[in-house]
Amino acid sequence: MLNNFTFINPTKIIFGKNTGGRIGEEIKKAGITKVLLVYGKGSIFKNGVYDSVTASLQKNNVKFAEVGGVQPNPVLSKVQEGIDTARQEQVQAIVPVGGGSVYDSAKAIAAGHNYDGNVWDFFARKAQIKSALPIFGVLTISATGSEMNNTAVITKEDERKKWVIAAKHLFPQVSIIDPSIQATLPAKETVNGAVDIMTHVLELYFDGSKNVELMQEYSEGILRTVMKHVQVLVKDASNYESRAQIAWAAALALNGSNSTGRKGGDWATHIIEHSLSAFHNDISHGAGLAILLPAWMRYVYKEDMETFERFAEKIFAITQGDPENKILTAIDRLKDFYRQIGAPTSLKESGIEYEDLEKIAENATLQGPLGTLKKLEKKDVLEILKIAYE
Amino acid sequence: MLNNFTFINPTKIIFGKNTGGRIGEEIKKAGITKVLLVYGKGSIFKNGVYDSVTASLQKNNVKFAEVGGVQPNPVLSKVQEGIDTARQEQVQAIVPVGGGSVYDSAKAIAAGHNYDGNVWDFFARKAQIKSALPIFGVLTISATGSEMNNTAVITKEDERKKWVIAAKHLFPQVSIIDPSIQATLPAKETVNGAVDIMTHVLELYFDGSKNVELMQEYSEGILRTVMKHVQVLVKDASNYESRAQIAWAAALALNGSNSTGRKGGDWATHIIEHSLSAFHNDISHGAGLAILLPAWMRYVYKEDMETFERFAEKIFAITQGDPENKILTAIDRLKDFYRQIGAPTSLKESGIEYEDLEKIAENATLQGPLGTLKKLEKKDVLEILKIAYE
Repeated sequence: MLNNFTFINPTKIIFGKNTGGRIGEEIKKAGITKVLLVYGKGSIFKNGVYDSVTASLQKNNVKFAEVGGVQPNPVLSKVQEGIDTARQEQVQAIVPVGGGSVYDSAKAIAAGHNYDGNVWDFFARKAQIKSALPIFGVLTISATGSEMNNTAVITKEDERKKWVIAAKHLFPQVSIIDPSIQATLPAKETVNGAVDIMTHVLELYFDGSKNVELMQEYSEGILRTVMKHVQVLVKDASNYESRAQIAWAAALALNGSNSTGRKGGDWATHIIEHSLSAFHNDISHGAGLAILLPAWMRYVYKEDMETFERFAEKIFAITQGDPENKILTAIDRLKDFYRQIGAPTSLKESGIEYEDLEKIAENATLQGPLGTLKKLEKKDVLEILKIAYE
Repeated sequence: MLNNFTFINPTKIIFGKNTGGRIGEEIKKAGITKVLLVYGKGSIFKNGVYDSVTASLQKNNVKFAEVGGVQPNPVLSKVQEGIDTARQEQVQAIVPVGGGSVYDSAKAIAAGHNYDGNVWDFFARKAQIKSALPIFGVLTISATGSEMNNTAVITKEDERKKWVIAAKHLFPQVSIIDPSIQATLPAKETVNGAVDIMTHVLELYFDGSKNVELMQEYSEGILRTVMKHVQVLVKDASNYESRAQIAWAAALALNGSNSTGRKGGDWATHIIEHSLSAFHNDISHGAGLAILLPAWMRYVYKEDMETFERFAEKIFAITQGDPENKILTAIDRLKDFYRQIGAPTSLKESGIEYEDLEKIAENATLQGPLGTLKKLEKKDVLEILKIAYE
């Protein structure tokens, strides 16, 4: 049966060309006079976004403190720095200006600011988020969907734990998505983003839910659109229409609507990737997913042949052959697609040592077995990593 | 170019079997102690929904006044009665328990309650909605999407005006959608609902927008799902899975997400239908739409052959022939589909007099020309009505 569900997503999205400068007005309307800007390693200084955002804040009499230097796999120490600064500066809201890592850091800062204990307690399930500062963000890379959802992923460096929090208080109040900001993104980041979006969709698609046809249609629509337009962007980075399709797809892929009525997604691949990048901070989230998802698919497809066959038909138009053949062909086609857009497709080519697979599997299953479609123990994860190695 | 847009939809949806009894708890959590129940002509007494809703209110110490008898094309006089009762009884929220007409009446009551002048001022664009009582509803018929959007349509009987309001204050705070409530709906109402949902999607789909591929995919997914499952329900009214697919599709079809980046939809067909049913209150909204949409399509398809051809391919898998042929075949197939599920397909068979077409066209264009894809004057509307007549 379609599962009962509750759906709410209160985030206001302002989407389109030249919308970044509207952030100050939104913050002012909320009665806020001081914020903490959070950003990454400096691309917002090159593409003009820092200037337009700060000008917008000044124009609306919103003061701001700053925490920069958030890195791609965002870390707890930076979150702690943000919490400290937010308190010292007595800000009333957090303003991420960046991609998913910046948004996720902002969410952790927003929750940590309102909590007396260590913010990691939320990730370790030792405490529940009861409140958070409001978040008003400007997105600069479409990938994680963090701009329109209530989750955040942070890495505790010393323990190599890349873990998740989720709470209704973490929905951004406003997110501005201006696809034209992404016109200068390097192809590699665009591709990583597209792979991340596709993987979000497929983690939901392959969670073993039944009678979720409307959501499968929705998923397939997002997949086909992202796959088509990332191929355009690899050749023509500044194509606005393709940026726009992918930017909106990223938000819709993981804003909760695509999860309605499902079992909640599988997420084994994401957790294995988190373990992988906890050891190899140089492997981006998207690259790790491109390598791991096809391996996961090959290991688990027998658990739900019907959905995997549907995937073969709807995404790759594979209609000939027996079900198993269609499925294996589709997995190959997915790997071919990743290769074609320039994503890595094996752990080996990404410089991972075979001997490391064991500890990655160990670390991935620290919080217990993974996945919904098939429960994966450490030994299963190791098998998947071995498939992904070649 | 994809149009810039702002998207927000704060409605909380509680979806699934046996969820109707959760309404009291949601109202109590909001600190509300007295509400106005609004309902229709009595089906909620037969299917047990009245009992479960009132029991839930009582259990949560929420008092209630009542206004029943809302009719399918809801009228201003009933809205006025609701406003008067809401004021006399000093309620803090409106609780529609019914389909789209009940929800729409509740929205007009909620806005009118907080306004000193005549509530019709909002419909006539003489005043703007600045606030409204909160709305907590229980949906009993999936069709209009009113359960998850900010619009309402009401008829001013004496002037035969069936007009629309929209305001951010009109989003229901909570809507409960229990598909199992709809298990006893007569086939005719199920079909009318499905036609309404399909028409919402197609009004958006055919508004002449370009570069909205993601939204076209989304639209096509909703259409295919509704078309498949209404055929199941015509034969097996109590099929829960099909009820659930259509119930969620109805909300998603018109909750704003499907409009993002578009020109806002065409809506000529809806306005012509409103005029038709202002004269013929016996013709349901869904029946009117089934008759009018194919006629509108035939009249306007040359304005956007690309999208109409896409429709032929994606919805009816028509891949052979030249574009015009494919389009005309698709329009015929849509009429065949409506006929097959038991919807009417001509004005004549629905008892409309040919001489009435002129005044229906006149009335439809009272607020100016209609439509986005093609601006329709009275003479155009008359031509469409003539096509719809046979």
